[in-house]
Parts: sequence; C-alpha cells; structure tokens
Amino acid sequence: MTSSNSQSKQAEVNQKHRVVFQMNSNDPESQKTLINNILNVKKAWGSHVAIEVVALGPGIELVMTEKSAAAQDVAKMIKSGVIFVACENTMAKKNITKVDLIENVGTVPSGIEEIIIKQEQGWSYIKG
Amino acid sequence: MTSSNSQSKQAEVNQKHRVVFQMNSNDPESQKTLINNILNVKKAWGSHVAIEVVALGPGIELVMTEKSAAAQDVAKMIKSGVIFVACENTMAKKNITKVDLIENVGTVPSGIEEIIIKQEQGWSYIKG
Amino acid sequence: MTSSNSQSKQAEVNQKHRVVFQMNSNDPESQKTLINNILNVKKAWGSHVAIEVVALGPGIELVMTEKSAAAQDVAKMIKSGVIFVACENTMAKKNITKVDLIENVGTVPSGIEEIIIKQEQGWSYIKG
Repeated sequence: MTSSNSQSKQAEVNQKHRVVFQMNSNDPESQKTLINNILNVKKAWGSHVAIEVVALGPGIELVMTEKSAAAQDVAKMIKSGVIFVACENTMAKKNITKVDLIENVGTVPSGIEEIIIKQEQGWSYIKG
Repeated sequence: MTSSNSQSKQAEVNQKHRVVFQMNSNDPESQKTLINNILNVKKAWGSHVAIEVVALGPGIELVMTEKSAAAQDVAKMIKSGVIFVACENTMAKKNITKVDLIENVGTVPSGIEEIIIKQEQGWSYIKG
Repeated sequence: MTSSNSQSKQAEVNQKHRVVFQMNSNDPESQKTLINNILNVKKAWGSHVAIEVVALGPGIELVMTEKSAAAQDVAKMIKSGVIFVACENTMAKKNITKVDLIENVGTVPSGIEEIIIKQEQGWSYIKG
C-alpha cells in the first residue's frame, strides 16, 4: 500500500482519478442516481478519471438490455469510456448470459472480488 | 495515499484518524444513526479524529434547517469540529441555496467527487 | 496505494486479500447475500483472504443465536476462519450480552471505529 516518494510523484503526473461503483439495487431511482453521479464526475474530470461500475445481485439489471431503466445511458457511457461489468456469480445464479447484457458490458468472475481488487489497486470506492 | 516509510512514521505521530461519511438518505432513522456513529467516534478518539459528512441526493436534508431531523445535533457537532458539506450538484437540482442550510455547513462542487478525493488522500470511507 | 511492479509481485506472493464487510441490516435477504458473497470470496481465494464482518445497528442480529437468519452459516464460517464481530455500542444500547451471540463471535468497542481502523490498515471495505 505504501511506496516511495518518487513513485508518488510519478503517480501524480500520470494518474487519473479512479473510482469503482458498486451497484446492488434494481431500483430505477438508484439506477438514475448512479447515472447522474457518473455524469457529474465525467463533467468535472473528463478524461482524467477512470470509472468502473460493478453490477451484481439485483443490481445486475442495470446492464441487462431488457431490464435496465437506463439502458441507453449505459450504452452511451460505455462509448465514452466508462467500464460496466456484470458479476458472473450473479449471472449463473439467475441464468443470465452475455446475450442478455447491453453491448460491450464486460463480465468479472465475482463482483465482490472485483471491488476488493480495485481498492487494493488504489481505486476509490462508492457504494451506489 | 502513498508515502515513503519515513513519511508514514511521521504520519503516525502527527495524524489523526480521518473518516468521510456519505449521507444519501433523508430517512430520519438513518440521520439518527449517523449522528450516533459520529458521537461514538468522537467519544473514543476526541480530537484525534477528523470527520467529514458529505450530504448529497435526498441526504442533503440532513443539513437543511427546515428539513433535518437532526438540525440541533448537526449545529452542535459543527461547533465541536465536525465538517458537514452539501453537494452543489444536488443543491442546483433541488433549488436549494446556502440560505437553506444550517449555519456553517459548507458546500462542495460535487459530493461524489469529494468522497473520491478524500479516499485518495487516505481517509477511511463509511457509507452511512 | 500504488507500488512498483516488483513490490506488486512481492505482494502477490506474501499477502492475502483483506476485506471488512459492514453489516447494518437485519433484513434476512441482506444476510443471505452477505453469506453468499463470503462463500464466493472463499471459493476463489481460499486461505489467501482475510475476512471480517462487523455487525452493528440492526445488523447485529446476524450474529445473535436467536435472531440470525443465517446462524448455522455464521457458525460454520467462523470455523473456516472468517471473523465475525459485534459492536459493543450496539450491544449496550439493545441490552445484548455475549451470551446472546453465536459462539466465537467477537466484540469490538465500536463497529464504526473498527471499520475505519481496518481501512487505515489497508483492508478493502464492502458495505453489505
């Protein structure tokens, strides 16, 4: 977790802000709030922020073509560089396949592990 | 987030605990829980902890004079050094102005960005 | 939070993943989700992950023999090395004593402080 001074300076030069959002809820209101939060972050930091949204549990509906209340927003954001990933554990449990997901949504073996790993790598974490 | 070994040691000598609370909810029960959590933290760590509460979305009501279920507690805590800030994005959306906020509540351009930045600076994060 | 490549490799050899879960809810569905998340993490990382669950507020029911919807799972997980701790502030408030807790559940003076300290020590944080 710690590193030398020179590395820190290097990091400050090269590095963007990095944030991972945890999306657990299929509540349309929560989905809209998340979209809004991302828009605000992009507006302020532009290309200087890396954003990943991890959809898991009921929250997986955010990235499902037929179920998302924000499907168009998600598609547009993916084009602008925001990463959306679905939890494969959740997919297996709910019989969801890649075909059910919005185009260019990625998958990760486990949503929880993904969030843990991102924090290990220094990403900030927001529970949506 | 990062530092050299000597900086770390320095930090351990000088530095207090630092925690940023995210307040998204306008549920009075959640507001009371947050107040309680802060009281407990202050009781244990006294002046050795820096506490900031970021009120955003529906949670902005926590810091609004007319709407907060904990207005007196918030005012008292501000006097004791706890920082409360409101999200300007939320304020703009809900037509809330500084006048509507409890005295000495600060504002930040974006509540989400504030929480991201605080984590980058090594603050612990609690989703209220 | 950042480190050189060689440090990263070193970390992968020596260090386990470490994650602290915050359990605030007494909703049986949330309890099951938490148990599931832990099972998935254990399945993937086995002994290479340290897991601590902090039960506080209404979430303390997770670790109470008579109230938990997942008492058997909790007992089994403790045997497999997962740490469960109850918040003593919550216990005092609700007149809960050690006798009411599932065997080998620990206690901490304050659940919130425990989560803050764990993050200071580099643990990842998941709001359950």
